[in-house]
Amino acid sequence: MASPFGFRLEARSRECQARAGVFRTPHGDVPTPFFMPVGTRGSVKGIHAEDLARVGTRVVLANTYHLHLRPGHETVRELGGLHAFMGWNGPILTDSGGYQLFSLREVTSIDEGGATVKSIVDGTPIRLTPESVVDIQLALGPDVLMAFDHCPADPSAESEVQAATERTHRWLERCVRRWREQGGESDGHALFGIVQGGGFPELRKRSVEAVLTHDLPGYAVGGVSVGEDQRTMQRAVAAATPLLPEDRPRYLMGVGLPRDFLAAIALGIDMFDCVTPTRHGRTHQAFTSRGRINLRNRIWARDDSPLDPSCDCPTCSGYSKGYLRHLAKAGEMLAAILLTLHNLRFFHMLMEQTRAAILADRFEAWRAEVEEMDPVRGDVPA
Amino acid sequence: MASPFGFRLEARSRECQARAGVFRTPHGDVPTPFFMPVGTRGSVKGIHAEDLARVGTRVVLANTYHLHLRPGHETVRELGGLHAFMGWNGPILTDSGGYQLFSLREVTSIDEGGATVKSIVDGTPIRLTPESVVDIQLALGPDVLMAFDHCPADPSAESEVQAATERTHRWLERCVRRWREQGGESDGHALFGIVQGGGFPELRKRSVEAVLTHDLPGYAVGGVSVGEDQRTMQRAVAAATPLLPEDRPRYLMGVGLPRDFLAAIALGIDMFDCVTPTRHGRTHQAFTSRGRINLRNRIWARDDSPLDPSCDCPTCSGYSKGYLRHLAKAGEMLAAILLTLHNLRFFHMLMEQTRAAILADRFEAWRAEVEEMDPVRGDVPA
Repeated sequence: MASPFGFRLEARSRECQARAGVFRTPHGDVPTPFFMPVGTRGSVKGIHAEDLARVGTRVVLANTYHLHLRPGHETVRELGGLHAFMGWNGPILTDSGGYQLFSLREVTSIDEGGATVKSIVDGTPIRLTPESVVDIQLALGPDVLMAFDHCPADPSAESEVQAATERTHRWLERCVRRWREQGGESDGHALFGIVQGGGFPELRKRSVEAVLTHDLPGYAVGGVSVGEDQRTMQRAVAAATPLLPEDRPRYLMGVGLPRDFLAAIALGIDMFDCVTPTRHGRTHQAFTSRGRINLRNRIWARDDSPLDPSCDCPTCSGYSKGYLRHLAKAGEMLAAILLTLHNLRFFHMLMEQTRAAILADRFEAWRAEVEEMDPVRGDVPA
Repeated sequence: MASPFGFRLEARSRECQARAGVFRTPHGDVPTPFFMPVGTRGSVKGIHAEDLARVGTRVVLANTYHLHLRPGHETVRELGGLHAFMGWNGPILTDSGGYQLFSLREVTSIDEGGATVKSIVDGTPIRLTPESVVDIQLALGPDVLMAFDHCPADPSAESEVQAATERTHRWLERCVRRWREQGGESDGHALFGIVQGGGFPELRKRSVEAVLTHDLPGYAVGGVSVGEDQRTMQRAVAAATPLLPEDRPRYLMGVGLPRDFLAAIALGIDMFDCVTPTRHGRTHQAFTSRGRINLRNRIWARDDSPLDPSCDCPTCSGYSKGYLRHLAKAGEMLAAILLTLHNLRFFHMLMEQTRAAILADRFEAWRAEVEEMDPVRGDVPA
């Protein structure tokens, strides 16, 4: 049966490994590179599906561990699967719960068979195995499911990272077997393998080789955004991407700042996800083309200009910084909503502009512009 | 100069005093009867302006006392007035702060000159007078501003209600003078007078007579929704409306349940406001054509049907009760947003259907249907 998934390369930078393509899924084609907002519990916090689409979201990420706990994957299946459940007709990617082995490491124990993680709802132990994680994700019914991986914190000793990486390879073997038994990609669900190896380039290379023993619809670079510095992260990506096949999408997990996007895209990455735009929105921080700004700052109190004059989002079209600052100070939930809408648009627009730059073969010039706009400079007067 | 305000009667029920008309304002014509969502601090909680319009909102109410405290009426004026501030191009009505003399009565002292209310932000005393309340509202710049009134709780002794009512008349005199000095309705801001008189029909009648000594663009029945029962409220309205001029809109302040709307419309009321749809949305209660339902109830956990099959709102078009219940239980802010959107649509649709019934001269049959749907029956299985 023909696969409903595919990746078509449309352009490659002559200056670096940056590339533009189209990722084909059962819920539509997605131009790359792209950014996925995080809908941990089946909701991108504060944003309904129509507004998500409106600010340029193409793919949404949802979280296996959290949906397994509540409302339960069988409930989601009964309610028609994640697309019907979330009212989202575009592609959906589910993570595998592997990240929770890192983020909830204080309440997790890992063995060869799988991992036992305490429920954050009621403390009961939740057993996750490569097989159960595939089953849970298939019940949720995303377009893309992720392999179960063991992702150690950074820094960790090389021996620890090596052990976790090799376990990830054995778990991948079991994930792939379970996924193929359940119908594989022709059933509408693409399994992506995850490369580990921490900050050790040699381990990263060996991990790519191990992961590539499986012919999969896409590959991810995991084990980043776990405490490492930017150089370490870039070294990890640089070790992996040249070995990955050109005709599959490449997903860098959990990386979420504009500078890091451009650095990773230069190394050949196509897909990103992170909580940055939504979490920063809820804490009243906005990403703009003139830098990052804190809407609680009193300098905005009487400012009648939009957050970002070069932004086409509903927030910038309809409201002033003075109003947003008032909402933030008054504790109105609309502040979080409008700032999240803007931040999502900023991230999606950054990807759209980056794609256009790659297609025009001027990626490095565009990257310099993005670094110039310095999105971590802090408050800037209008 | 011709007034930018007007009220045109389009139909009158032959069965009762129910009427359908059009209220003309500088920001557009509004078919009556209509319901105004409350945007206390310049934001209808959780709903941006485009979604407000989408669910049928025509007029938004904002609160003088709260906006005076934060961000301050001068700040709102500098930011272009309430319409620009809130990103809302339809008509806006501001209350006068009179209601806070009731709701914040524990921290309020009233004298002939005005009232001193403690700031809920920092406890400093805020002095409000009929003149300052007009000035604050004109700085905010709504289409409709309300006179400053003294609204006693129910029950109160007749002598107390009489004193408050007569004070309201003297304050109205001062409000009208200030408003005319500032340009009056030809300047784009219509002052509405408020009838008081509590649950005493004779006081209500005398109050109408006193208020009608001023030729104003609209009149309100205030001093309801302050603790009285439904009969008392209806008696108060019934005493007032037959004496009010036919060619001015009539606004019943703070009444917000479907049955009460229909009873008041039968007595000739045109305009309503209340926090019910937004507050109930935030506590996960939905108004539906089959009764009011609590989305936290586990009976909805695996229900894949919409809140209300006869509703055309974005929530009912896109999401199941099972999903909404999950969001509510998980504490996702999207639950409040989607339920508020639905409740607002329910209230606006009720007004649209009531208007259609009046135009078709079948108001009483429609009223019986609304009472039949029993919106306070509680949870109903689908």
